[in-house]
Amino acid sequence: MSTAPLSSWNDGAARSAILDFVERSADVPPAERIATFDNDGTLWCEKPAYVQAMFILARLREQADADPALAARPVVQALLAGDLGAAAHAGGTEELVDVLLSTHSGLTAEAFAEVAAGWLAEARHPRFERPFADLVYAPMLELLELLRGAGFRVFVVTGGGVEFVRAASERLYGIGPDDVVGSAVEVAFERRDGRVVLVRQAKLMGSPNEGAPKALNIQAHVGRRPIFAAGNSAGDREMLEYATTGTHPSLALVVNHDDTEREYAYAGQSVTDPSAEAIADTAARAGWTVVSMRDDWARVFA
Amino acid sequence: MSTAPLSSWNDGAARSAILDFVERSADVPPAERIATFDNDGTLWCEKPAYVQAMFILARLREQADADPALAARPVVQALLAGDLGAAAHAGGTEELVDVLLSTHSGLTAEAFAEVAAGWLAEARHPRFERPFADLVYAPMLELLELLRGAGFRVFVVTGGGVEFVRAASERLYGIGPDDVVGSAVEVAFERRDGRVVLVRQAKLMGSPNEGAPKALNIQAHVGRRPIFAAGNSAGDREMLEYATTGTHPSLALVVNHDDTEREYAYAGQSVTDPSAEAIADTAARAGWTVVSMRDDWARVFA
Repeated sequence: MSTAPLSSWNDGAARSAILDFVERSADVPPAERIATFDNDGTLWCEKPAYVQAMFILARLREQADADPALAARPVVQALLAGDLGAAAHAGGTEELVDVLLSTHSGLTAEAFAEVAAGWLAEARHPRFERPFADLVYAPMLELLELLRGAGFRVFVVTGGGVEFVRAASERLYGIGPDDVVGSAVEVAFERRDGRVVLVRQAKLMGSPNEGAPKALNIQAHVGRRPIFAAGNSAGDREMLEYATTGTHPSLALVVNHDDTEREYAYAGQSVTDPSAEAIADTAARAGWTVVSMRDDWARVFA
Repeated sequence: MSTAPLSSWNDGAARSAILDFVERSADVPPAERIATFDNDGTLWCEKPAYVQAMFILARLREQADADPALAARPVVQALLAGDLGAAAHAGGTEELVDVLLSTHSGLTAEAFAEVAAGWLAEARHPRFERPFADLVYAPMLELLELLRGAGFRVFVVTGGGVEFVRAASERLYGIGPDDVVGSAVEVAFERRDGRVVLVRQAKLMGSPNEGAPKALNIQAHVGRRPIFAAGNSAGDREMLEYATTGTHPSLALVVNHDDTEREYAYAGQSVTDPSAEAIADTAARAGWTVVSMRDDWARVFA
């Protein structure tokens, strides 16, 4: 990474808006310089599937290999064939979610962190044939750096599983586990051989961290309204709206995936509300800054 | 505060155990140097009642003065007479909790923070006739300082309301809102005049942050097992047990209130489980370090 700010960004409206915002935020009390970033599709590549989905499927494949009864279930067969639609059809959403959450239930928090970190170190992206850690967006790393240099505290606010993202966030982004807000499974307090362990259950805790819950969970976790937020899907709308309707200068950034050559072209959708307005339409209406991956980024991957 | 470490602590087993722990933890990776402190009775005075209870009652008094129908309710009359037993008897626990949570429902997160900070700046302790900010334990402030100096990150993990403690934690302890874990009410995402606001509801979110939930919420919020924990009541047991059964050197500290002259003498009980084992008994069994307020503290208040 160059020492010049945002050197992987082309000159243009997006880069200018960021530099301008950093200047405008200089008078904001340091404690209120809070920046929140969506993860999948905003900080790293989320296609052809969420990294965490590939992680879960890899584990399901192992488990199915060892357990013929599991392998015989239609929902499992559809999942392993990569057909999410058929999988949902086979058992209904409830069974699907149960199968997916069961892949890592029973693990302690500490064991899960090891399993996730181990998989991330080995696994490779099917198209780019590189470890997922290499598929972090270089321009966004520079943006994190710029904001930190301007006294911001930076949080990841992900629809993905909080413990999965934590297993990588320090290494990927320099963001420690306590600064990751995400979806979570329920955890049981148990004593094993005189030691307290926290054991993952096959049950989501509350709502997924998408849409309005992103704003609510930021308040629950951070305790302050952010003044900067970045996302790429309709599931980030409420977070961006929250960040831009406080009393301080603010900036909302939407990463637009329009680069089939270097990455992918698609519109980021809300996982929990498929009927939600396209984020590009919200951005146009609200005057948010849209980042064209194709035009605004001189380099995509780190 | 003196620059010598723990200068408000008398020489003795407790002070030695702390200094020894800091030395033993020098080899723990910095990111894993996590310390968690209960708030009421551990960092500041919780008698004759929780500070937050006094805050809620002050608001209820104002509301009852303005609303004769509210003032006429038996549960409210009992509360304002300071008779919690009669209040619970008047309407059952459910009505009691509803009345207490309703005092600040409808406020936005930001408005609540202002109300709480404003009250804390004005209110005075009934016996000591000083602002509550003065009733922080000087020896514990020195301990926070010592741990920070040794590379620890320090979190408050309170059974009290997270937003109430956040309104004071920076000023009292130098602990920012994102490093406070506590009980929480549900919050609604609303749009008012084009601005997103998060509005407090008269409903507790999940379980109070006492007992096993303290350990679970530490994991949810911090993402790591602490290696140091301090508490003073049976509601802190699981947190202390969690902190002391990991793989690193650890220390659990129990503040024993045995000083009627300078503070109070009582056994800290669990709010959610009155039948829980006394924390002194757990401490004796587990070999935790007990701090005698009377003998170990040369000075009590800051």
